[in-house]
Amino acid sequence: MLELTRITLPEILDLEKRYRANLINGILGYKPANLIATLGKNGVENVAIFNSTIHIGATPPLVGFIMRPLTVPRQTYTNIKESGYYTINHVHSDMIWEAHQSSAKYPEDVSEFAETGLKPWYSENFKIPYVEKSFVKMGLKFVEELPIQANGTLLIVGEVQELFYPEHIVSEDGTPDLNAIETVSVTGLDVYHLPQKLKRFSYPRPHQKGIEI
Amino acid sequence: MLELTRITLPEILDLEKRYRANLINGILGYKPANLIATLGKNGVENVAIFNSTIHIGATPPLVGFIMRPLTVPRQTYTNIKESGYYTINHVHSDMIWEAHQSSAKYPEDVSEFAETGLKPWYSENFKIPYVEKSFVKMGLKFVEELPIQANGTLLIVGEVQELFYPEHIVSEDGTPDLNAIETVSVTGLDVYHLPQKLKRFSYPRPHQKGIEI
Repeated sequence: MLELTRITLPEILDLEKRYRANLINGILGYKPANLIATLGKNGVENVAIFNSTIHIGATPPLVGFIMRPLTVPRQTYTNIKESGYYTINHVHSDMIWEAHQSSAKYPEDVSEFAETGLKPWYSENFKIPYVEKSFVKMGLKFVEELPIQANGTLLIVGEVQELFYPEHIVSEDGTPDLNAIETVSVTGLDVYHLPQKLKRFSYPRPHQKGIEI
Repeated sequence: MLELTRITLPEILDLEKRYRANLINGILGYKPANLIATLGKNGVENVAIFNSTIHIGATPPLVGFIMRPLTVPRQTYTNIKESGYYTINHVHSDMIWEAHQSSAKYPEDVSEFAETGLKPWYSENFKIPYVEKSFVKMGLKFVEELPIQANGTLLIVGEVQELFYPEHIVSEDGTPDLNAIETVSVTGLDVYHLPQKLKRFSYPRPHQKGIEI
């Protein structure tokens, strides 16, 4: 077995700030890369990458993400609270630069769409922009926010109102094939990865063990 | 551009239950695959796979995960609340079957370690088992739980007390290389993937665009 280094909480807190951010942000595992788009009261179309989207439930379809503390203005948060709606869009291998650049701190009156070259796209029944190039787009309605006492972050929960995807990537039993559209994954704050399927297993039961399907 | 299918909230709720679970669990993106281990009051070592771990903060180091509604007994939850501690362990490409099988509903007095062949391992200063085979292991202290009103799930938040990793995978600036230890990613409930790095970008600024590093 590989020799493992041990680092304790006091030692983690003693690390240089940027080193600690890279280590702790990156060590938990692979994260989804998604673009969250919103619309400001001023009409500015906002888009920013989030690596903290999380599945909360299927019935109803609920998605969460972590919003950093509101100690500085957060356009995504302000726009979601004011309009009540936002969109989540996939990042694919041919748009990782644009997705990454969307996290730069642009002024409030500047659209990250214009700055990065990502193009907005509107569906017939949803007033918030989607990312045109994303093969998976979901339109969400804000449902609730949960303040995390430990560090002042917020879990933002939304309900999927409409969902777009290429029909051919969804199998007969509803399983989407994200490899087929080269959706990417991210580690830490800045490393982008392309996953490839290893195996799919059947539902495991105590006396009927999961087999490859 | 690929033709996209549109499905609305009422249509999602009308889908066959298993189809909806596969579609909604899988469509958001790639998720981290982690094994959460706990210790019961009865001395039984529990381990189960969770695909909902999420980075909450680096200072202090905080990690969250979603616990399904407590409408049936949840050993992981009970053990965490009783002991105050738990561990999070990586799943690597050579242990995906064992990790998947750990989600079978074994009786309370049965250890998933024994049933799956995963081996527990203890550090000197932490009373909860780790997964021996995992190259990244973190020992956590329970901090808070946030009930999500919309569907009765809970966000469980813990603080990292100690962290183990192979020293050679961490770069000079603290960035871990998870490709090197074949940590896997999961989509939906049952599809395991191996990610490969595409690119890393520098910190993006409005007038100094991110470049590959």
